[in-house]
Formats: sequence, structure tokens, C-alpha cells
Amino acid sequence: MSEYINSVIENCTFVRAFGHKLKLFYMYKFENIIRVRYGETDRMGYVYNGNYASYFEVGRAESLRNLGISYKKIEDEGFALPVRDMKMRFFKPAYYDEALKIVTTVREKPGIRICFEYEIFNESQALLTKGDTTLVFVNKKTGKPDQPPAYVIRAFEPFFD
Amino acid sequence: MSEYINSVIENCTFVRAFGHKLKLFYMYKFENIIRVRYGETDRMGYVYNGNYASYFEVGRAESLRNLGISYKKIEDEGFALPVRDMKMRFFKPAYYDEALKIVTTVREKPGIRICFEYEIFNESQALLTKGDTTLVFVNKKTGKPDQPPAYVIRAFEPFFD
Amino acid sequence: MSEYINSVIENCTFVRAFGHKLKLFYMYKFENIIRVRYGETDRMGYVYNGNYASYFEVGRAESLRNLGISYKKIEDEGFALPVRDMKMRFFKPAYYDEALKIVTTVREKPGIRICFEYEIFNESQALLTKGDTTLVFVNKKTGKPDQPPAYVIRAFEPFFD
Amino acid sequence: MSEYINSVIENCTFVRAFGHKLKLFYMYKFENIIRVRYGETDRMGYVYNGNYASYFEVGRAESLRNLGISYKKIEDEGFALPVRDMKMRFFKPAYYDEALKIVTTVREKPGIRICFEYEIFNESQALLTKGDTTLVFVNKKTGKPDQPPAYVIRAFEPFFD
Repeated sequence: MSEYINSVIENCTFVRAFGHKLKLFYMYKFENIIRVRYGETDRMGYVYNGNYASYFEVGRAESLRNLGISYKKIEDEGFALPVRDMKMRFFKPAYYDEALKIVTTVREKPGIRICFEYEIFNESQALLTKGDTTLVFVNKKTGKPDQPPAYVIRAFEPFFD
Repeated sequence: MSEYINSVIENCTFVRAFGHKLKLFYMYKFENIIRVRYGETDRMGYVYNGNYASYFEVGRAESLRNLGISYKKIEDEGFALPVRDMKMRFFKPAYYDEALKIVTTVREKPGIRICFEYEIFNESQALLTKGDTTLVFVNKKTGKPDQPPAYVIRAFEPFFD
Repeated sequence: MSEYINSVIENCTFVRAFGHKLKLFYMYKFENIIRVRYGETDRMGYVYNGNYASYFEVGRAESLRNLGISYKKIEDEGFALPVRDMKMRFFKPAYYDEALKIVTTVREKPGIRICFEYEIFNESQALLTKGDTTLVFVNKKTGKPDQPPAYVIRAFEPFFD
Repeated sequence: MSEYINSVIENCTFVRAFGHKLKLFYMYKFENIIRVRYGETDRMGYVYNGNYASYFEVGRAESLRNLGISYKKIEDEGFALPVRDMKMRFFKPAYYDEALKIVTTVREKPGIRICFEYEIFNESQALLTKGDTTLVFVNKKTGKPDQPPAYVIRAFEPFFD
């Protein structure tokens, strides 16, 4: 059985108006599945709130991998990618053993900063959690924020042109 | 050696103007110390972002305990206290073995919702992380949001009257 | 891409001796793949030792699922399955983003106790970690150890007859 | 309130026999207190088994600190201290918010390997968990096991002479 069903689910939205097809907005959207582990639950029986940070991380790492970008390789090439800020809003709890769908969206072409949005759904397609994170490309040599490697920018170009 | 040095550090600010002492704003503020564990760090050598949720949780549990309120007792009395939303902003990393100071602030009298703000400082008093969480008192019998137990409200009264 | 490649890889070993095929020992063996998450690494750059307990748990939950047994359903039917003891031995470290293979083995027909053995391999097939856990079926009503549900025993029978 | 009450509780046992006081065995023993965090519990309401690895780690780090030895400093001086093996046995569960006592014992003078034993007690002095870990001093330059820094050995000498 496949735990991770990954796919690019859409990259822009079109509307038809006055006989023209108008591209409304661009984005990169990706989804994958994650199975809730026992140790991720708490005594309420819910997934503990702190564990969503880890689910978000899996969402963004897999969404990058789908573009041929390895988070690990970026780090090995001399960048650190610390999280600058993180927000999450909880609508419904997730439970042990549920196969959660993480939808990860990048709405803006990445530069020094890269923003990811996340939506987490349970098997009944109920929205459980929304969140976002901003990460900064930091050059390990200088310790300063820096432009990401060129191939990272190129990988996102098809979604924003 | 004491790991947790807990104290109410202030509960309001006064200014003197026109010969009068004016109370500017009310709040409940509390601080405690937490030691970074090895397993809380990541391969960057930083405290992993997801672990701050747990630091915040310790901050609010200890700040309540200082008022004679036990988070556990509230749950045992029939309430769940799920986190509704959480925000965090990271300014500087925390490292292994640092004794971090968590300053927890409640700025509004708790009702159905209770909001906590957190500031985390390292031993050099540098601000590392800011965050806040909103929790909701949920009556386990009805599954609906509800007023907190009377003694919880009473415990906060001295700080907001 | 599929993260979890699960399969029953063998259930007994045969030797041919004196013209006879002899069944040497019985067991249930299962393998699945798990991807190392960022937050599971520590400042050494290794997977933190405490996180292997969680990898073992995924190994045994998936090995049971493969037999049509849901760990969650067992709990919902009135059993708790606490871990009684756990051992682990670390040979080589696991690193961020590696797709680790967890081989889970049950060598004895489960009764009140069920023992799982685990071997964790990296992508180069190097053995990183070995471990085992013993879990006990506890009847939640009586709080006492008890025989597992009949369908759990039946599911293992083909591997031990 | 102090969360960590640390002390050397004993370092050897004496028996009186034939009018002589005989020293039976030597050891270094240390205890500290740790408060169970919400996120460390699981849906059974117990501390999740994987989190004991982290409790053990706090036990050994604090027991070393009490001898003037900083785990972090050892690493900064060019050593890695990976865990080679770990065992744990669970007798009773620990619950949210309990102040657990971790008793850490070193029974043999440390060399290339250092062995720690742990016993965890709840507030009613019931033994919940026993465990042990063996760590190896690895020279980061050579990648090989090596003798620990001289001051580490010296710090343990009073307990084994």
C-alpha cells in the first residue's frame, strides 16, 4: 500500500469572461498523505498541536522533491533554510492512524524567502488544520540571507510565468 | 540547582502624569526556565521549530500552576482545552543545553477563550522567539465551548480589576 | 512516488537434507519504508535515538495492518497494548531524508504477549539498528493481561502452523 | 518552585561484618525531577514509550553536570557521544503533569564506553521504568572510539577509588 500519493494538483485557475480565457492566479500546489503515528497523539486522543510543524515540514519537503529539489541537497550546498515564522489554525482534531492529506501551496515565486501554505484534511475530506511557514535562504558562509540556488528558482518558473 | 525559577514578574504598568498615577494596562505575566534537551535539536544544531509548541505549553501550564490552577485538574473536571490557533516568529536560534527563559503573558481576562503570549530568551537575554496561542474551554459532555470553571476566572481577577 | 513499499517477504525457511524439504522455523516477516524527517535529527546530524521507538511502532502497526489487523480497532474493542519492554542497539547512524527500510519480525505465535523484532536498514542496505519490543494485551475493563481477540490469533496462524 | 532537585544520593554501600565495615560496591548515583509535558502523553493517557529515551538523556546530562561535566562541552571539544544501546522496561505508566524522579547510576568507571542506569519513580515512589544506555566516546577527527577527556575520568575517580 502506498502511504504517500503525491501529485501536482493544479497550478493556476482560469475564468472565462467576455469570450476570453483569463488566467487568474498562479501557484504550485502539491499533495501527499501522511499516516498519524501513535506517539503523535496526546491524552485527549488528538494529534498533539506541536506535531503539525513536522507534518508541514514533510509537506514542503515532498512538494520540493516533486520538483526535483532536495531540501537536503540545498543544505549540503551551503544553505541553511530556517523557519522564520509559522502559523497554524486548528478546526478539527486528527486521530491516531488516520491517513491525512497535506496540501502544500506556494503562491509566490521564491526568492530569499519562500512561503508555503498547508491545508490538512482527514479521510472524510474535512479540513482539520490550516497553516503557513516562511523560510529564509541563509548562506552558511556569510550567515546572511541570500538568493536561493538558480536551479531552485528555475524549478518554480513554469508555475509562475 | 533549580531549573525552573518561576515568578510573577509584573501585572501592570503605571505612569505618572499630571501628578496622578495612571494604571496603563493589566496583565498576568509569569516566567520560567526550561533547559534545551538533546533530542530537541535538529541537524542545523538549532532547537527544531516544532518543539517550541511544547515550550509554550510548559510556559502556560506553569503560569497557571502559579495561580493555583492545574491544567490536568481542569481536564479531569470535564473540560478539554484544545489549542485553536498558534503563531510563532523566530528571531534567533536556541541551542542545546541553553537555559531558556519563557515569559508567558495573559493580557485579557479569560472567558470561553484564553490567550497566552510567549517570549523566549536565551541566557544572554536575547529574544529568540515570540508566539501566542488561543485555547478554548470545551465542555466534554456537550462537546461545545463553555465558560471555564469559576475558580479559574477568580484566579485571574486580581490581575484585571 | 510510494513511500511505503510493504510486503510479506518470507514466512519460513526451508532446507533440503537427505532428500527432504525441512521447514526450519516459522515466523511472520514484513518490511516497510519510512522517510527520516528533519525534526527527527539531532545536532550530531543523526536520527535521535528516542525516535527509533516511533519507527518501531510504525513497523509493527504496518505489519499488523498487512494481516488485516488494525491496532486502533484492537484498542477500540477494549484492549490496551502497552509496551512492556524495549531494546535497541545502534550500529550506524541514520541521516535526514534517508528512506529507511524497517523489517519487522514476529517469531512466536502471539498470546497475552506479542514480541516484535526490528531491523532498520539504510538505502545502501547497511544495518543501522536492531531492536525488539514486547507488548501485552490488557483488558481495559479488568485492567488485567488477557488473551488477544480471536481474529488476531487467527491472522497469525498461517505463519506458525 | 524547583522542578529539578538534584543531589548525589549515595556513592557506595557499607556492610558491617565480623566487626569490620566493608565497602561493598562503588557507584555514582544522582537524582533529578522532570515534569511530564502534555505532548509527551499518548492516546492511552500514558507517557509515550519513546519519550523515556529523552528522560534518560536529561538524567545523564544532569548527572554529569553535577560533576562539573558538560555534555555540550565534550562535544565542542571534538567528541561525539552516540548511544550504542538502550534498554527499557516499563512497570507502570507515567501520567501528564506528574513530577517524575529520575535516578541515574554509573556503576563502572567510564572509559571508551560509559554506562548509565536509570530508574524512574512517580510521586508515590512507585517504580515506573528501568533502563540503561551505553554511550561511546568517539573522536570526531578520526571517527574512531577514543578515551574520554582526562577531566571526565578525574571527575568520576572519587566514586570508584
